[in-house]
Amino acid sequence: MLVPFDLMKQTIKSAFINSGMSPERAEICAQIHTETSCDGVYSHGLNRVPRFCDYLKKGWVNPEAFPTFVSGSGSLEIYDGNLGPGITNGIFAIDRAMQLADEHTVGVVALKNTTHWMRGGTYGWGAANKGYLALLFTNTESTMPPWGGKDIKLGNNPFIMAAPYKDQPVVLDMAMSLYSFGKLETTRLTGKELPFPGGFDSDGNLTSNPALIEKSMRVLPIGYWKGSAMAIMLDLFSAMLSGGMSTAEIDKVKKGSCTGCCQTFIAIKPDVLISQERLEQIVEETISHIKTSEPSNKNTSINYPGESTLKRREENLKNGIPVDEGVWNTVCKLASPSKLD
Amino acid sequence: MLVPFDLMKQTIKSAFINSGMSPERAEICAQIHTETSCDGVYSHGLNRVPRFCDYLKKGWVNPEAFPTFVSGSGSLEIYDGNLGPGITNGIFAIDRAMQLADEHTVGVVALKNTTHWMRGGTYGWGAANKGYLALLFTNTESTMPPWGGKDIKLGNNPFIMAAPYKDQPVVLDMAMSLYSFGKLETTRLTGKELPFPGGFDSDGNLTSNPALIEKSMRVLPIGYWKGSAMAIMLDLFSAMLSGGMSTAEIDKVKKGSCTGCCQTFIAIKPDVLISQERLEQIVEETISHIKTSEPSNKNTSINYPGESTLKRREENLKNGIPVDEGVWNTVCKLASPSKLD
Repeated sequence: MLVPFDLMKQTIKSAFINSGMSPERAEICAQIHTETSCDGVYSHGLNRVPRFCDYLKKGWVNPEAFPTFVSGSGSLEIYDGNLGPGITNGIFAIDRAMQLADEHTVGVVALKNTTHWMRGGTYGWGAANKGYLALLFTNTESTMPPWGGKDIKLGNNPFIMAAPYKDQPVVLDMAMSLYSFGKLETTRLTGKELPFPGGFDSDGNLTSNPALIEKSMRVLPIGYWKGSAMAIMLDLFSAMLSGGMSTAEIDKVKKGSCTGCCQTFIAIKPDVLISQERLEQIVEETISHIKTSEPSNKNTSINYPGESTLKRREENLKNGIPVDEGVWNTVCKLASPSKLD
Repeated sequence: MLVPFDLMKQTIKSAFINSGMSPERAEICAQIHTETSCDGVYSHGLNRVPRFCDYLKKGWVNPEAFPTFVSGSGSLEIYDGNLGPGITNGIFAIDRAMQLADEHTVGVVALKNTTHWMRGGTYGWGAANKGYLALLFTNTESTMPPWGGKDIKLGNNPFIMAAPYKDQPVVLDMAMSLYSFGKLETTRLTGKELPFPGGFDSDGNLTSNPALIEKSMRVLPIGYWKGSAMAIMLDLFSAMLSGGMSTAEIDKVKKGSCTGCCQTFIAIKPDVLISQERLEQIVEETISHIKTSEPSNKNTSINYPGESTLKRREENLKNGIPVDEGVWNTVCKLASPSKLD
């Protein structure tokens, strides 16, 4: 089923208003959730709406909270997210990081005590569209085992790098696990195997069977020991820069995903020192260099980071955004009776 | 064979002097190469000495060049490495990044036109030992295919994150390939298979046979498409921050590994805004959280990033540093006749 952008946005907005958000904030959050689905990141777009509404109802997210200034020095400022919506907190933080970059060429905002920022790439695309290099990461509650361990003690901490290029930035948005639990579920529902082993079964054997990994919860970090180590470092940096909670502490809160987490927003203004022409040339020659690699087989294309997102955005804007009918019906119910102004 | 630290250092120093370096600079570079071997990163310690001497003789590295200031604004400064030794350039750059961090809390040095920095972790350990968070990366010449491609068009770009903790920092130092070519070689020489598939054979099948990967050169990025994308982003950031050469341009130079590359040194001073006590608490609770995960089997230990390095350093300082006898003899020859002052 395909849903037009505007209809999806209005429906999500109504659902958020019904869950206690002001129309102004619901408008912003609905826009981001819809853009996320439109870009093909369905897990953190429409599909995430019911869970977010649930968090609002439970009081785990304060729909009207704003970040408050904690302390700052030079290029770095710390804010308390006051458990406000991850999206409005995140937009505030990346905007402030860009302001700091305008002043100091590099700007860092460390945001503590915030909530799930949904798609981390949102803030990377936003900053790169305005001409900034952006490097962003967050910690989370534990969702995977550290390398060499069985118990779930490691955050699947997202990491985003975004580089400006005209109106088509180059954006990497990845978590530390090879596959998300969402990918395990959708693969299981189609009765297929994962393209590469994605975790261990309960006996500790590597497996491509998504159901066995969902059972053991032992998802595989990217690069095995390397992704495990990187997840630890992102957690340390997030907490040490902001003074907020580490994964170990978030685990004690037990209020869903990312509640109380810390996020880091680094923005750098490259055109202060390097000409726009040279910046664009670097991106162009890098992309064309990669694209000249012979494809590994006839049906394979070599994409730069964010390229497939741009394609999907265009398609989904034109044809409508693919939705799971069950999820769409759930969100429609949350949106009705409408309190839309 | 085990070689004591001081003997290794003096031997490497003589080799560097014989290759045209001043005693002062040879002292610094020999110290770093020896520390690198002592920490167990043999590939970039003693084992790298013959190749570095060769680069000096070929004029690919200018032994006496210093970085020169190109431009700067706020927290960010660009330097030209003038093809000086990667180690002395790297030490200069991380020191300057820390000075900028003292002034602006965050300091970024973008170094272009430099040479191989040997172990990237050197600068991370150094900064973290002085109380800074450090995030470092470099671009390189192409050494692996982009995801979906066969031809070697991607730098195996190292990425380092280091966090201070007393005299035992937590340090991640990783490249974007799952295994280094050094690891493929040593595994092949022992007649073993890699613990996990490390690349594709010439027919495009995933394989754990190191010889087949050495032949195809199709090493696997960490997390398949994810590591490939991250390598592209590290390349873009390195070149866009410094205005220096991208991997595509380095490939045209054809003067060995990393000659003319760009490196980024980010240092942040966390204790300006967060108390030392809280910073240490975050590290302690994170490490103990991970360590409480049940090991996946009896013989497995769960290590935090850098932990095994610290253990190996202690052992090697006590017992001597393990060397390959062939490599050791080669370096001894380069060191003789000694011109040691």
